[in-house]
Amino acid sequence: MPRIVTLTTDFGSGSEYVAEMKARLLHARQPPTLVDIAHDIPAHDIRAAAWLVGQACFAFPAGALHIVVVDPGVGTSRRLVWARIGEQEFIAPDNGVLSWAIRRAGLREAREIALPPDAAATFHGRDVIAPAAVRLIDGALPESLGQSATNLEQLAWPEPRETLHGLEGEVIHVDAFGNLVTNLTAAAWPRVIAARAMQIGPHAVTTLVHTYGDATRGTPVALVGSQGFVEIAVVEGRADERLAAGIGTPVRLPAQEFRATTD
Amino acid sequence: MPRIVTLTTDFGSGSEYVAEMKARLLHARQPPTLVDIAHDIPAHDIRAAAWLVGQACFAFPAGALHIVVVDPGVGTSRRLVWARIGEQEFIAPDNGVLSWAIRRAGLREAREIALPPDAAATFHGRDVIAPAAVRLIDGALPESLGQSATNLEQLAWPEPRETLHGLEGEVIHVDAFGNLVTNLTAAAWPRVIAARAMQIGPHAVTTLVHTYGDATRGTPVALVGSQGFVEIAVVEGRADERLAAGIGTPVRLPAQEFRATTD
Amino acid sequence: MPRIVTLTTDFGSGSEYVAEMKARLLHARQPPTLVDIAHDIPAHDIRAAAWLVGQACFAFPAGALHIVVVDPGVGTSRRLVWARIGEQEFIAPDNGVLSWAIRRAGLREAREIALPPDAAATFHGRDVIAPAAVRLIDGALPESLGQSATNLEQLAWPEPRETLHGLEGEVIHVDAFGNLVTNLTAAAWPRVIAARAMQIGPHAVTTLVHTYGDATRGTPVALVGSQGFVEIAVVEGRADERLAAGIGTPVRLPAQEFRATTD
Repeated sequence: MPRIVTLTTDFGSGSEYVAEMKARLLHARQPPTLVDIAHDIPAHDIRAAAWLVGQACFAFPAGALHIVVVDPGVGTSRRLVWARIGEQEFIAPDNGVLSWAIRRAGLREAREIALPPDAAATFHGRDVIAPAAVRLIDGALPESLGQSATNLEQLAWPEPRETLHGLEGEVIHVDAFGNLVTNLTAAAWPRVIAARAMQIGPHAVTTLVHTYGDATRGTPVALVGSQGFVEIAVVEGRADERLAAGIGTPVRLPAQEFRATTD
Repeated sequence: MPRIVTLTTDFGSGSEYVAEMKARLLHARQPPTLVDIAHDIPAHDIRAAAWLVGQACFAFPAGALHIVVVDPGVGTSRRLVWARIGEQEFIAPDNGVLSWAIRRAGLREAREIALPPDAAATFHGRDVIAPAAVRLIDGALPESLGQSATNLEQLAWPEPRETLHGLEGEVIHVDAFGNLVTNLTAAAWPRVIAARAMQIGPHAVTTLVHTYGDATRGTPVALVGSQGFVEIAVVEGRADERLAAGIGTPVRLPAQEFRATTD
Repeated sequence: MPRIVTLTTDFGSGSEYVAEMKARLLHARQPPTLVDIAHDIPAHDIRAAAWLVGQACFAFPAGALHIVVVDPGVGTSRRLVWARIGEQEFIAPDNGVLSWAIRRAGLREAREIALPPDAAATFHGRDVIAPAAVRLIDGALPESLGQSATNLEQLAWPEPRETLHGLEGEVIHVDAFGNLVTNLTAAAWPRVIAARAMQIGPHAVTTLVHTYGDATRGTPVALVGSQGFVEIAVVEGRADERLAAGIGTPVRLPAQEFRATTD
C-alpha cells in the first residue's frame, strides 16, 4: 500500500516550491499518497506550524510520514531531523516545529539528516528533505539518514497557572471560524461550570454550552472543543473579532473557592 | 480500484479539521482517492455549499462518495444523512446542503446515520461522518448506517418568474472570475437574443456572445455559461465589481412580445 | 503505476471548474494521480502561469502530464495543443502559457487538439482538455489527438542587457514570501560579489549572503535562490513591500570594470 506522506509548509498556496517537493517525492519506487495539511502557515511562524502539526498528525494511520517545512533558518547551522513521535514519523528542521507534537505524543527516536554536498542553501525541503523521504519510502532505515539526534529544540508552550485570581491561561490558537482555543483542557471544564462564567480579556462569557448550535446566533459561548481544549466561540460568528482576542489573549477562571460548590 | 471520496467544507484552507478528517478516511482497508472540492466555503454558508456540491459532483464516476460538512447545527438535533442522489453518494448534515444536488439529479435513497455515543458534539465530520464513510468504503451496506430517512431539508431555490415586466430571475452564483451566473437556463437564451439585451440591476447588457473572448476586454457580455445557465461577464474583468452585482441581484428579460420577432 | 497529471489554472481555490475537470480525469481506466500545482494564478495572467509551469513541472518523473488552463481566449480561434517539452508532456491553450517551459527545456513535438463538436465554448478545460488527457492516459498516441502543430505562441521574456550603466535586468517573479526573483542567473553572481552591491529600483542592496538566515531579521539581502536566479529578499520579511518592488522592477549591476577586480 502506498505510504502516506503529509506536507505542512509556509510556502503559500499554489507555490512552485510545493510543486517541486511533490515532484521529487513522486520519484519514489512506489509513489506515496500525498496529503496537504497546510501551505498557508504565516511565513516563518514556527509556533503556528508546531501547533497545527501536533493537532493534525496523530490521527493518521501509524507509520505515516509528516514533512514540515517552516524553516527561516534554512541553510544555517540548525539541523534537519527525522523523528519518530508516538506512532508517526516526521521530517523537519530542528527549530521547535515538532515541539507540540513531542509534548503530545512523546519523542521515541530522532536522527540528524546528513546534508548532501550539492543542496541549495535556500531550499532544503527540495534538496535534503524530499530525497531523505524518498529513501525512507523506498525502504531505507532511519539509521541510514544520519547520526542519532538528541535535545531537539523545544518551544516554551504556555501552561495554565493557579494564581490568587484563579486559574489563568491564554488563547493558543484561532481556527478558521474565529473560534478561540485556549490552553485550558477539558479537565478544567467542571470549574467553568461551577463558576458559571469564563473571563477572556475584559469580557465575561457566561453562556456555557455543549455545542455551538445550543445558543442563538451571535451569542459568545464557552465549550469544550473537539480538540479537547476549552474554547470560546460566537455562534455563527467570529469570536476573534467580536471579543478582539487572538493568540496570547489571557483567559481566567475564578479562584478555587468556587470549585467547592460543585465538588 | 480505490473509492473516490470528495470533501467540501467551510473549515478553511489549511485547517487542522480537514487533516483530521482525511487522517481518519485513510484508515479504510483500501484507502480512498481523496479529492478536495472546496474548504473555503464562507463559514456556515449552507446555500453556497449546496450550489457548489450540486454543480461539482455529478461528473465524477458513478459511486463516488461526496462528504459535505457545512454544519452550523453540529451536535444539535439536525440529522446526519447518507443519500444516493442520481448515481452519486453523499454524506452530509440534513440542513439543506444537499438540496441543489437533489433538485438536479433526484433523491433515490437516504439513511439517517446513527450517532456513536462518544462523538464530540462539535465535530461530527471527524467523529461520525468519517467513520461512517470508512464503513462504506470497507464494504458495509448503507442500510447498516441507520434507519431510512425521508423529508430531507430543502432550501428554497429562487425560480425565474414571468411578470408584466418580463421574465425575472436573479444571480445565484458568482464564480472566482467574478462572472455572474443567473437562474435563467439556456432555454431562455433565444429570448435574450430576441431582446438583444438583458437587464441586471440598473444595467442593460447588450453584447451577447458565444464565449468571453468574442468581445473586447472590459466589455460586459451575456452568454450561456458552461454550467447551462445564462451568465453575465466582463471580458477579462470582474462583472461582480463592474456591475456592483452579487447573489440575489435581479436580472430581467423584456416581456413576451419581443419573442415573436424571432420565433 | 498511475500516470501523474498536474493541474495549473486560474479557476480559483475551491472552484467548481477544478472539480469538474478532476471528475472527468478520474474516468480514465486507470485513474491518474492528480497533483494541484496552483489554481490561484491571477485571473487571465498567462505570464504568471507560464513562469510557474516552467519552474514547477520539470522535476516530475518523466512522462508526467501537465494540464494548464489559463485561457482568456477560450472558445475563440486560439488552438489547444498537446506538447512534449523536455521529458514532460503538457496540454494547454496555445497562448504563450507554455513559452517559459519551452525556453527552459525545448519543444520536441506538438499536436493541435481537434475540438469535439459538442464542447461548451466557455469551458474547453472540461470539454476538450480533460477528455484528450483521458485518451492519453488510456493509452492513445498523441498523434491521434490532431495534426502536428508548429509555431507555438511565445511570450517575450525579458533578457538582461549590458548597457553603459552595467548589466540591467528585472524582477520576473515574486514568491509567496515576497522574495524578488530576477532574470539574472547564477552566472551573474560573481559580478554581484565583485560589485559588493546590487541595485533594485532606487535601493542598493549591499548584504550578499549564501542563505536567508545569514543576516539578521529585517535585512535586505541578495543571494542565488533555489531556482538558479539572483534573488533579493528581506530576512524573515517581505522584500516586495519593503523595497516597493514587483514584477518588472529594474535591477542593475555596475559596469564591467568592477568585474576585473575578481576575475
